[in-house]
Amino acid sequence: MPVKFTDLIKSLPVTIPFVGPETLERRTGAPYQARIGANESVFGPSPKAIKAMKQAASENWKYADPENYDLCHALASHHGVSPDNIVIGEGIDGLLGVAAKLFVEPGVTSIMPDGAYPTFALHISNLGGAISRVPYVDDHESIDDLLAQARKLDASVLYFTNPDNPMGTFWKKEAVARLIKELPDGVALFFDEAYCEFASKDELLPIDISNPHVIRFRTFSKAYGMAGARIGYTIAHEDITAALNKVRNQYGINRVGQIGALAALGDQDWLNQVCQWTAEGRERIYHIASSNGLKAIPSMTNFVTVDMGRDQVYAKTVLDEINKRGVFMRMPFAAPGNRCIRVGVGKSEDLDLFEKVLGEVLKTVG
Amino acid sequence: MPVKFTDLIKSLPVTIPFVGPETLERRTGAPYQARIGANESVFGPSPKAIKAMKQAASENWKYADPENYDLCHALASHHGVSPDNIVIGEGIDGLLGVAAKLFVEPGVTSIMPDGAYPTFALHISNLGGAISRVPYVDDHESIDDLLAQARKLDASVLYFTNPDNPMGTFWKKEAVARLIKELPDGVALFFDEAYCEFASKDELLPIDISNPHVIRFRTFSKAYGMAGARIGYTIAHEDITAALNKVRNQYGINRVGQIGALAALGDQDWLNQVCQWTAEGRERIYHIASSNGLKAIPSMTNFVTVDMGRDQVYAKTVLDEINKRGVFMRMPFAAPGNRCIRVGVGKSEDLDLFEKVLGEVLKTVG
Repeated sequence: MPVKFTDLIKSLPVTIPFVGPETLERRTGAPYQARIGANESVFGPSPKAIKAMKQAASENWKYADPENYDLCHALASHHGVSPDNIVIGEGIDGLLGVAAKLFVEPGVTSIMPDGAYPTFALHISNLGGAISRVPYVDDHESIDDLLAQARKLDASVLYFTNPDNPMGTFWKKEAVARLIKELPDGVALFFDEAYCEFASKDELLPIDISNPHVIRFRTFSKAYGMAGARIGYTIAHEDITAALNKVRNQYGINRVGQIGALAALGDQDWLNQVCQWTAEGRERIYHIASSNGLKAIPSMTNFVTVDMGRDQVYAKTVLDEINKRGVFMRMPFAAPGNRCIRVGVGKSEDLDLFEKVLGEVLKTVG
Repeated sequence: MPVKFTDLIKSLPVTIPFVGPETLERRTGAPYQARIGANESVFGPSPKAIKAMKQAASENWKYADPENYDLCHALASHHGVSPDNIVIGEGIDGLLGVAAKLFVEPGVTSIMPDGAYPTFALHISNLGGAISRVPYVDDHESIDDLLAQARKLDASVLYFTNPDNPMGTFWKKEAVARLIKELPDGVALFFDEAYCEFASKDELLPIDISNPHVIRFRTFSKAYGMAGARIGYTIAHEDITAALNKVRNQYGINRVGQIGALAALGDQDWLNQVCQWTAEGRERIYHIASSNGLKAIPSMTNFVTVDMGRDQVYAKTVLDEINKRGVFMRMPFAAPGNRCIRVGVGKSEDLDLFEKVLGEVLKTVG
């Protein structure tokens, strides 16, 4: 008799949310010269965080503190909330999975923008939940359509990300406040703010941990430059925190990352510097796009999505040709965003190469 | 209307499988002078792994390769299997949770030794599964009783660990082979071998990936000295690997740990040295126990469980008094093991302190 897989497991396909650049390099045998496709921060972690991680390496025989006490307390202080409003997890990827466990089971519906972060959908499917996808409008997540769909389908979870990935667009705080105010009864908003440090502080919705319907997801992977460390966190009402603590992997956090994140949080000067460099990089990408007769979509993130002006086949052809020429990049998955390519902010030399390669490719593919 | 928690989430208690030493230190305000309670390796990672992790720290802006290609291939080669038989996860803790998803849902029963690794039970409960616990016999997991219970309850999963934690005892390969041969129809054996590198290679059951009923769990947390890195792996039939890959967190692995584990695997001389030091440490603990008129249970791990010769209240009193005197240690949770305390192998100075403190405590508590 074979092992007794659940029916759910048997029904699930194998899903790869993202093919890593290493996989593509192995396929072609050629390493990329510019790595600007995974929305990583090429400027890296704070030098103070690097120093702390190097020191932590030789002490890596110890488990990390499973309470994440120091990091939780530092984040609480940083955001003006209580440590009971913070949960640390293995990146936003891991935390979306933990949070999904609170609400999702067969028969439950979740709503997401069509083309938004695919790992969310993977976690929902793995729990047997249904997903309804709502198209972007004018390259923005459509607040009105998301709300209408959540209402219509009596959803339990609504996924929303701001600033948006993969389009880079942004809703100002008044719009987000309206989204929260108009959430249908009982819906939990999974509010992914992976890129929020790149946006203007004045435009971000203030944190309000009194509302148990809003779970904010943040990370050290983007502006803090520590994607490899796998440290994300939630900010939420203490009832949500308590539920997350029931089902999180209490020994999932690596010690080097935990210590590095604490040091990174303590170096806000570095963060501000990175955000400035990133803003300059966006301007450079806007300029490269317009010089080539292309329209860049204004971004509040560390990448710029560039409208290739034709269909998805054309955009994919351009992307493939760029990748072949040593520049790792990706593109939006779903219509209408898939007429675009997504260009990560790189160092000057990365963007020099992108500019050169883009020019070549546009001439080649016509 | 409140958020729509699932009934399962509402029913779950908050469970802390292990209170970390940092938590205890915060409670008392005094740091431990010896940390020999979490079965960590005080000898640390290979110097080559430390060097690799330090180098990786400054590159931590990159996500780890989500395929874990290099590490999977190195482990496959090390064990003489295919990379399709290996899955990397966030320690055995994380992998037990991933593997549980394959089989466990409400209505499904899992069997475990009573007092064995509590994180297994946590993962099962979080999926709504039932657990049946089978007492140890003569300080060993009882193969006969585990099999009988799995048969009686039509179980889907049987958890078995060898060498055992928390007792340190060991079943030779013939006994384990019999367990596998007599597994009831359809039962998946979760075979936790966290401590296997400390045992004699000749006594370990050879790897046989042709049997889809056996999932072996291994880790870099114990003999490899990298508990903080959170890198474990499964060895199993490719059908099991394929199912695990459906539901694992593909971006759960930290880059420093991934790179460090590869370097650690490549330094088998260090591993052998650590195992020798560990064996010497066990002898030292046996000696300390007998000098104090106590019986140590022979161990194949990096800890020794010492029979305090009375009941659990006495053992707990002794443990608390030892902890108060600056030595972090733990004890088995469940009867009959909870008449014992568990002493991790430490460096000479750690065991010197333990010896001194134990003598004091035995005089005090009488």
